[in-house]
Amino acid sequence: MHQIGIDIGGTKIKIGLVADGFKLLKTTNINFPTNKNSEKTVNLIVNHIRRLIDSIGISLEQIVSIGIATAGSVDEEKGLIVNAHNLGFHNVPIVKMMQGHFKGKNIALINDADAATYAELKAGSLYGINIGVMITIGTGIGSGIVLGGEIFRGGQGQGTEFGHMTLQQEGPVCSCGNRGCVETLCSASWLVEQGMISMSKRLDSLIFKRTGGDVKRVTGEIVIDSAKEGDACGKIIFRQYLDNLSSAVTSIANFLDPEVIVIGGGVSLVGDFLFNPLRELVEQKSFFKTPCDIIPAKFGNHAGIIGATCWASRT
Amino acid sequence: MHQIGIDIGGTKIKIGLVADGFKLLKTTNINFPTNKNSEKTVNLIVNHIRRLIDSIGISLEQIVSIGIATAGSVDEEKGLIVNAHNLGFHNVPIVKMMQGHFKGKNIALINDADAATYAELKAGSLYGINIGVMITIGTGIGSGIVLGGEIFRGGQGQGTEFGHMTLQQEGPVCSCGNRGCVETLCSASWLVEQGMISMSKRLDSLIFKRTGGDVKRVTGEIVIDSAKEGDACGKIIFRQYLDNLSSAVTSIANFLDPEVIVIGGGVSLVGDFLFNPLRELVEQKSFFKTPCDIIPAKFGNHAGIIGATCWASRT
Repeated sequence: MHQIGIDIGGTKIKIGLVADGFKLLKTTNINFPTNKNSEKTVNLIVNHIRRLIDSIGISLEQIVSIGIATAGSVDEEKGLIVNAHNLGFHNVPIVKMMQGHFKGKNIALINDADAATYAELKAGSLYGINIGVMITIGTGIGSGIVLGGEIFRGGQGQGTEFGHMTLQQEGPVCSCGNRGCVETLCSASWLVEQGMISMSKRLDSLIFKRTGGDVKRVTGEIVIDSAKEGDACGKIIFRQYLDNLSSAVTSIANFLDPEVIVIGGGVSLVGDFLFNPLRELVEQKSFFKTPCDIIPAKFGNHAGIIGATCWASRT
Repeated sequence: MHQIGIDIGGTKIKIGLVADGFKLLKTTNINFPTNKNSEKTVNLIVNHIRRLIDSIGISLEQIVSIGIATAGSVDEEKGLIVNAHNLGFHNVPIVKMMQGHFKGKNIALINDADAATYAELKAGSLYGINIGVMITIGTGIGSGIVLGGEIFRGGQGQGTEFGHMTLQQEGPVCSCGNRGCVETLCSASWLVEQGMISMSKRLDSLIFKRTGGDVKRVTGEIVIDSAKEGDACGKIIFRQYLDNLSSAVTSIANFLDPEVIVIGGGVSLVGDFLFNPLRELVEQKSFFKTPCDIIPAKFGNHAGIIGATCWASRT
């Protein structure tokens, strides 16, 4: 049994061919098109799916379902991307559009953070958890909450936006219009921005060397790598990042006292270099005696693909 | 059927004589003793309970239960105040101590914010709510969460500490050791502190006139009253307070998307002068289209007493 999982994000569209729900056979990444036309984007996705299937030597008939995870708010019933500011998509009937290309397939839509949470809950770091929180750190910050062993979609069904909790009331302006949201201080974008600032100051920094001075090439990974390699500049940025993220994580730990907080997305791939000091800081800052576990997402940066796949093939 | 409800806070101990669970017949307030000796405090409470019963012309036999709500962490099973930093109480077996004075009575202990939430859930502003949050604003800030129509005591049973979520990462130092917790910026203590600062600057302020320049007499109420009466200084403080509180409330609205956020404690008694601009600001700052309701606690500043009473007489 084969499935397709798609994870549409602000920077990249990731497509995965999955076997039996959780085995990721092969992935392909597309840069998110700059024109932001939904029809062209769907065509691009369709072409890449066909190529992916061909490359692995199976036929379209063997694909039983296609799951789509996307940034922004969705109407799962109607298969509609309601509002995805990062993508420039508003009221895009993506499930219907995809059904035009893949007739008779089971196609389902879910928000990307919910998808990641669903994957981790079904077979990953949230498996068997009663009260837990999932945070995905990428260009933006997504979140999912598990209550009573089930995904919680918000008390009024509007979602859960950890990324738009206030962390620094007079902090940087956020895309939502407020200041100092968690997203402005804990996303990979913050790391990139700080890397660019340090580079423009032309400090003796590995970030500058790695990118050849090209601001477009700065990534969160490069900044963290420079800290890992002992670069003074990278270390300052990373230390501040840990302070920001640990305060944000502690806020949730103090509010919900969850059993576990799972961190996914690109930044979580850093591993112990991130998780060890993060755990220590959260334990120091936490109000409660028993701190909650802080662990990486099992499906790492692929939780969105896996979650979308599971979501489409749920019974 | 008569009951006693006790609400032990950092500034005052409030005792209420209650009929049929929710009808508050009479209350008496004691200033929290400065010596912070638990035995003397219990004796003081016992004397006041006896006087309260006498004053209303009923006998001790008519009292079926005594509920105790307290600041700090409690062990309900053991009837133990585990840690109440504001009170200076650690491992105080208050239920056992009270049973020594009131033999055969049903005596129960609960955290004060949980008590307030319980009262509002049973017969107040949280009645019939599936997902809701209760915030009590006093000397400190307490919180309670309702999930699936039940009080949620934290994923690991340690509680829910809205007051210790970060609001201003580089803000004032909090009693918990962190900086810029919600409690440091949204409690009545913040209003008092700002009032004292404005007074010491000797600005033309009603706060100065009301207190006769005595810093000990500044209260949150006086500061808000001065804003209500158009005092320039009071207005600046109150405007900043609304900005702080609305950001903190929005953080919860964005994270849990609750149906309702109920605000209790002394500050909530201000009424529309607080709630109208607060609702407007939260609606502006909120990530979601449908804002949650923000309403005052039905039992106002007595939710602790009523909640403790209900808790002791629950079946």
